[in-house]
Amino acid sequence: MDDLDVVVRAAHQAFQSAADVVPRVRKSWLDGVADALDASLDELVDIAHTETHLAPARLDGELRRTTFQLRFLGDEVLRGLHLAATIDHADPAWGMGPRPDLRSVRRPLGVVAVFGASNFPFAFSVAGGDSASALAAGCAVVHKAHPAHPALARRTAQIVVDALRDAGAPDGLFALVEGEEQGVRLVEHPLVRAVGFTGSTRGGRALFDRAAARPDPIPFYGELGSTNPVFVTPRAWERRADEIVEGFLASVSLGRGQFCTKPGFLAVPSGGDAARRVADAAAAMGDTPDLMLSERLRDSFETSLRALVDRDGIDTVIGGPSTSPEPPLSILTVSGEAILADPDLFEHEAFGPASVIVEYRDEQQLHELARLVGGQLTTTVHGEPDDDAAPLLAELSARSGRVLWNGWPTGVSVSYAQQHGGPYPAATTSTTSVGADAITRFQRTVAYQGMPEEQLPIELRDDNPLGIPQRVDGVLRLNGMEVNR
Amino acid sequence: MDDLDVVVRAAHQAFQSAADVVPRVRKSWLDGVADALDASLDELVDIAHTETHLAPARLDGELRRTTFQLRFLGDEVLRGLHLAATIDHADPAWGMGPRPDLRSVRRPLGVVAVFGASNFPFAFSVAGGDSASALAAGCAVVHKAHPAHPALARRTAQIVVDALRDAGAPDGLFALVEGEEQGVRLVEHPLVRAVGFTGSTRGGRALFDRAAARPDPIPFYGELGSTNPVFVTPRAWERRADEIVEGFLASVSLGRGQFCTKPGFLAVPSGGDAARRVADAAAAMGDTPDLMLSERLRDSFETSLRALVDRDGIDTVIGGPSTSPEPPLSILTVSGEAILADPDLFEHEAFGPASVIVEYRDEQQLHELARLVGGQLTTTVHGEPDDDAAPLLAELSARSGRVLWNGWPTGVSVSYAQQHGGPYPAATTSTTSVGADAITRFQRTVAYQGMPEEQLPIELRDDNPLGIPQRVDGVLRLNGMEVNR
Repeated sequence: MDDLDVVVRAAHQAFQSAADVVPRVRKSWLDGVADALDASLDELVDIAHTETHLAPARLDGELRRTTFQLRFLGDEVLRGLHLAATIDHADPAWGMGPRPDLRSVRRPLGVVAVFGASNFPFAFSVAGGDSASALAAGCAVVHKAHPAHPALARRTAQIVVDALRDAGAPDGLFALVEGEEQGVRLVEHPLVRAVGFTGSTRGGRALFDRAAARPDPIPFYGELGSTNPVFVTPRAWERRADEIVEGFLASVSLGRGQFCTKPGFLAVPSGGDAARRVADAAAAMGDTPDLMLSERLRDSFETSLRALVDRDGIDTVIGGPSTSPEPPLSILTVSGEAILADPDLFEHEAFGPASVIVEYRDEQQLHELARLVGGQLTTTVHGEPDDDAAPLLAELSARSGRVLWNGWPTGVSVSYAQQHGGPYPAATTSTTSVGADAITRFQRTVAYQGMPEEQLPIELRDDNPLGIPQRVDGVLRLNGMEVNR
Repeated sequence: MDDLDVVVRAAHQAFQSAADVVPRVRKSWLDGVADALDASLDELVDIAHTETHLAPARLDGELRRTTFQLRFLGDEVLRGLHLAATIDHADPAWGMGPRPDLRSVRRPLGVVAVFGASNFPFAFSVAGGDSASALAAGCAVVHKAHPAHPALARRTAQIVVDALRDAGAPDGLFALVEGEEQGVRLVEHPLVRAVGFTGSTRGGRALFDRAAARPDPIPFYGELGSTNPVFVTPRAWERRADEIVEGFLASVSLGRGQFCTKPGFLAVPSGGDAARRVADAAAAMGDTPDLMLSERLRDSFETSLRALVDRDGIDTVIGGPSTSPEPPLSILTVSGEAILADPDLFEHEAFGPASVIVEYRDEQQLHELARLVGGQLTTTVHGEPDDDAAPLLAELSARSGRVLWNGWPTGVSVSYAQQHGGPYPAATTSTTSVGADAITRFQRTVAYQGMPEEQLPIELRDDNPLGIPQRVDGVLRLNGMEVNR
């Protein structure tokens, strides 16, 4: 037994002793963490600013989002919809033959390994979405710190650990580990039952492969690459080209382009003066207050941007490869024909302040381009009420987790309906890492057959002391009301 | 393009054209298939009996179960709970900052490859659970026939294809392919978006590995191995040993032991005369009317049984390895100590009429044994009201998809609460292959942001023309009623 093993075993024990606490208690743990983080906001934003070079205002907002998320998921725990409590009473006249008493509820998986992302040092890191949803599900979390913000990770983890202890949670329910090797060993540890990951396709796929190759494969919830293409209809371009360009540049520049939902492509009609409009609008824009997160990311962005610029048919409108420590905004153009000839260009993600304008010849080519798009976190259409956008939206919704109309994909609301995921490589599974449904990734259903009332989990008792939604003999019930005959 | 490619492309086209039919229409397709299968019951049972050697009465019941399942899942389609329709209206005062209008619904994945099992030629085969739930989700199905019943697979597929056509479904929504190579190619085909599989751990894992190694990994829903251990408390054994032995032998013998939920181990107190009781009860039992499904399965059972008998500490009570074409019921015994010394014995599945009685020394050893159990479809406790069974049930529920009390695991009810799955190797994911929730395996959620009403999927419209459950701003609603504040 070495250190990692000690940490994971302690997490497993904490998970076991906490698996059956009532919702109100689990909610109080999540609230405790949120309160403690909020109380340390200034200190945390300071450390984060030093390590990540993101602007304080952005970090402030991100931490508030993170504590909102903890409370939001805690509220979900209280509501109990995520438990999917289901009761089938014994039925001798059931259509396929006598049915035994059968009841099922979703239970927490166990210890979850969570890998932090560099670009959201709060919201997708130590106390971010994966950790919050795993804790809400009733799991224990071992968090692998991102090497781009080690001091912040340690301080945040200490606050989380202290807050959980102060709230009465068992020791070990949350722990931090560091280093690539520890991360790999986490994914392969027999007591780790699932992995949450946000990062690059390359790094994520390597860990996914390890999770799948285990003697007992475990789910690997990875959010990997996405280029988030945006399609502008001819009418929308004709009527609001400048407004669209302005929104586009703002979205691409946000956080110096280091968003997984940054629009990497903007498809507009050719002959619509896109290059000039972009150059004019960019000249009028101020620079972003955020800097590149790390030298490593800067280098990787430059390499990726160079590779993009070297592709056939790509022209540079503004910016381009540079040696400056803070790369300027780069906007490139390419014709629809060039993409049709080199379709995997649509998968080329340059993680930083760059995007490609695709000039399509006509609406037919617009649709051909849409059919080339691979798995995406988001796709977007800018259209007009008199557009027949249905076919385009159908193509795009088949390829993405979230489809936007006349909006920009940066900014991911934490809410009930959010879906932050999408076909590979956007995500490795069909689940979401943001929003209410993120909890269910860290659960599995257990059915109880013929179980005496006193041995049933409290969620499955006929008297429903928690007052949670129960589906009883097919009918959804709440507080005695039948609601879904 | 070869034959397989043609089939998958046709399935993909059919999926696309059928993805948006209203629930009533999809229900009518499932009902059409069920009606057509019921109308051909005699013919199908005849073919199945010839090919599988299962008794006609059993096959008759299995086909009725299969058509019940199609109708049951069709009813679920009408209810619409599986769509998880969620509406978040725009909210400028949302806790983390202004929330856009965001709505999400579960959509079908696309073409699903389904692998039939040999031991349930109807219920887990051509028109079985995986096919029914994939069709209910809105997917197309390409079914890989099990080589143990090719004529039955072809005839069943023809009936399904004809019934779907007669009901108005697009051509290609269901197709049959044969041969191991075609199966492998299906798992690797770019247009196949998920796989359903029921079979051996070895065969299933090989296909799982291929699904995970794709350039774009897809979910592989495999139901693999399970030994379904049953634990009898000292009190239960003292009070009802003979009744328990009778139920045990009946469950082990059912379908000549060829059930994935056959109890492979029965843990009883030592010194309780288990061997004599088993011998007496077996002598009083008639033989099962079902025969071994195939020579291959018989040979594999004999090999597995011999390996079991050769393990240290195993004694034979009745039966044992034989050269007869229809192996007799074999019951072996082993001490709790021997299992503790050789714990992976609990994973040894002999697929056929054999089971092992584990004689434990005391209650402490009973608990030690329970902690050795790996991932299982089912675990069972036979206990008494005055037993403190909670710790034992907690250990077992952490290891299995379904936990039974004073019952037998063979027999899997198709109902709302069913969970047919479990930690690996029982299943490769946390999902269920039987019951209402089986549908959701073949869906993924798509969120729509800022989408005009007329572009939204019908399930997400404010006027809710389908009358399905919608979660609106966090509150579950049905027919205008608010039901989950």
